[in-house]
Amino acid sequence: MYVGIDLGGTNIAAGLVTDDGKIVSKGSTPTLLPRDYTEIVKDMAVLTKKLIADAGLTEADIKGIGIGCPGSIDSKAGAVAFSNNLKMHHAPVAQELKKYFNLPVSILNDADAAAFGEYMANGNNADSFIFITLGTGVGGGIVINKKVYSGSNGAGGELGHITLVHGGVPCNCGNVGCWEAYASVTALIRQTKEAMEKHPESLMHQYAEKEGKVSGRTSFDAAKAGDEAAKAVVAQYCEYVASGLVSIINIFQPEKLVIGGGISKEGEYLLKPIREYCNAHEYNKYLKKVEISIATLFNDAGIIGAALSCKSL
Amino acid sequence: MYVGIDLGGTNIAAGLVTDDGKIVSKGSTPTLLPRDYTEIVKDMAVLTKKLIADAGLTEADIKGIGIGCPGSIDSKAGAVAFSNNLKMHHAPVAQELKKYFNLPVSILNDADAAAFGEYMANGNNADSFIFITLGTGVGGGIVINKKVYSGSNGAGGELGHITLVHGGVPCNCGNVGCWEAYASVTALIRQTKEAMEKHPESLMHQYAEKEGKVSGRTSFDAAKAGDEAAKAVVAQYCEYVASGLVSIINIFQPEKLVIGGGISKEGEYLLKPIREYCNAHEYNKYLKKVEISIATLFNDAGIIGAALSCKSL
Repeated sequence: MYVGIDLGGTNIAAGLVTDDGKIVSKGSTPTLLPRDYTEIVKDMAVLTKKLIADAGLTEADIKGIGIGCPGSIDSKAGAVAFSNNLKMHHAPVAQELKKYFNLPVSILNDADAAAFGEYMANGNNADSFIFITLGTGVGGGIVINKKVYSGSNGAGGELGHITLVHGGVPCNCGNVGCWEAYASVTALIRQTKEAMEKHPESLMHQYAEKEGKVSGRTSFDAAKAGDEAAKAVVAQYCEYVASGLVSIINIFQPEKLVIGGGISKEGEYLLKPIREYCNAHEYNKYLKKVEISIATLFNDAGIIGAALSCKSL
Repeated sequence: MYVGIDLGGTNIAAGLVTDDGKIVSKGSTPTLLPRDYTEIVKDMAVLTKKLIADAGLTEADIKGIGIGCPGSIDSKAGAVAFSNNLKMHHAPVAQELKKYFNLPVSILNDADAAAFGEYMANGNNADSFIFITLGTGVGGGIVINKKVYSGSNGAGGELGHITLVHGGVPCNCGNVGCWEAYASVTALIRQTKEAMEKHPESLMHQYAEKEGKVSGRTSFDAAKAGDEAAKAVVAQYCEYVASGLVSIINIFQPEKLVIGGGISKEGEYLLKPIREYCNAHEYNKYLKKVEISIATLFNDAGIIGAALSCKSL
């Protein structure tokens, strides 16, 4: 049994995870930012000890604790090198947690943890595996030779920040034209609102009213109901997603590529046009194509991946 | 001592390479396309035997033969999976060459071979290393954990075919907006010609006339002489190069990134604006930045890299 901790800006979530990647129990506690990392780690320790005790286990039943965390992580040093979300700079979070447990503690980027979780669940032991998450932003993780690749400084794998449109729309990262600025759910909502303004007759208005807001589902729901303006929004959005994937595929030609994040719940309705675009536009025309599929772990991916990342310690 | 072979569409070049990556002698023979791969391999064998004999050596002095070759390579099978340039499809080139020698024979993509050569010369044993070549096209190679990464099917590492401008100008690969279509020397020549048409007063006309053609040097030479239109061409070109590099850096955060190809002879005049753009636009603002430098092996990189790739057999 392992413990996986998903340290977020709002909550610290943790789970007991079996050796083969099943969550047996979960708990959470608020992160209460801003405060010092030592205070946050103290709450992580309390939460973890409670989870272990509530399951009728002791520390001796646990093989390791893994932490997934936003930002650039120095895994070797067991530290958050920099995290804008958590307001941490060179914070030795894993080292600090070791003070509370006589166990190995690993730390990795939260998107990398989710990627590793999906890899363990859906990667079929592939030598090369890419995970993309389409959410508020576009995140991702690279698994090569069964290990997360995060570059020389822990800041690699920022797959959402490849350029899609040189000189394009501003991105939160300070650059312009990033894939994230076109393929995130945030971008889809912007694209939906723009189309709704141009098309007062569109069903999208009714769907948005029913939900109380314009969401990532508005255009997909209206498109499925046959609305032409919504179909155009979805088609353009899928093309943006696929165009970024073509870059990723041309670089990595991974055995498997898995798409997660809220919008991935659209399943084949999202995947079909993406696969078609990738097949038509990728450089490789004659060799085996990458297998593209939808993530299965959703919000649990980070906890599972963080937990199982301990295995390689 | 190793033998490195650079199998090109026009010539087969080969060299004797020392264990530490120095070429001691070289030779070449025409590829004579189109013809069957068995005929080409026969000439590779003749060339190699001659090189060995001319150096006063025997096969016993050679530890292995490495072949660099355009296209998608199935290194495990010792075969060219697909090469448009060589008109080969599932051609077991390395297997065939083994019939002539009692030696290990490796085969890898030619850009990957050049990347590995530059890595061995300039990589300082880095865990992550990227090589980019700005030539007729934009090529590249990825070295991770001291090995070339070419994806699950040997078709990865096509760094020139990441998207720079979604919906942009057509690329030779069939896609549109690829980095190669903006950052290759071919693209620079196109950009230079466009600027020359708009600026009949530009010094670029004189430089082109002197050289007898518009080349990759025309805009750089005129810019260095103070020509404003040429300066604008160079600035825009460097921005295109750097914008693609930002994508590569955000993905890999490599320890080292080396730029080769004809245009790399511009040295710091090329590197300075590229470094500035990358520093300002990359996602990583707070951690160690990648070291960007110019290649040193030029045309020998492929022979040296192919030869030394045998070491890991």
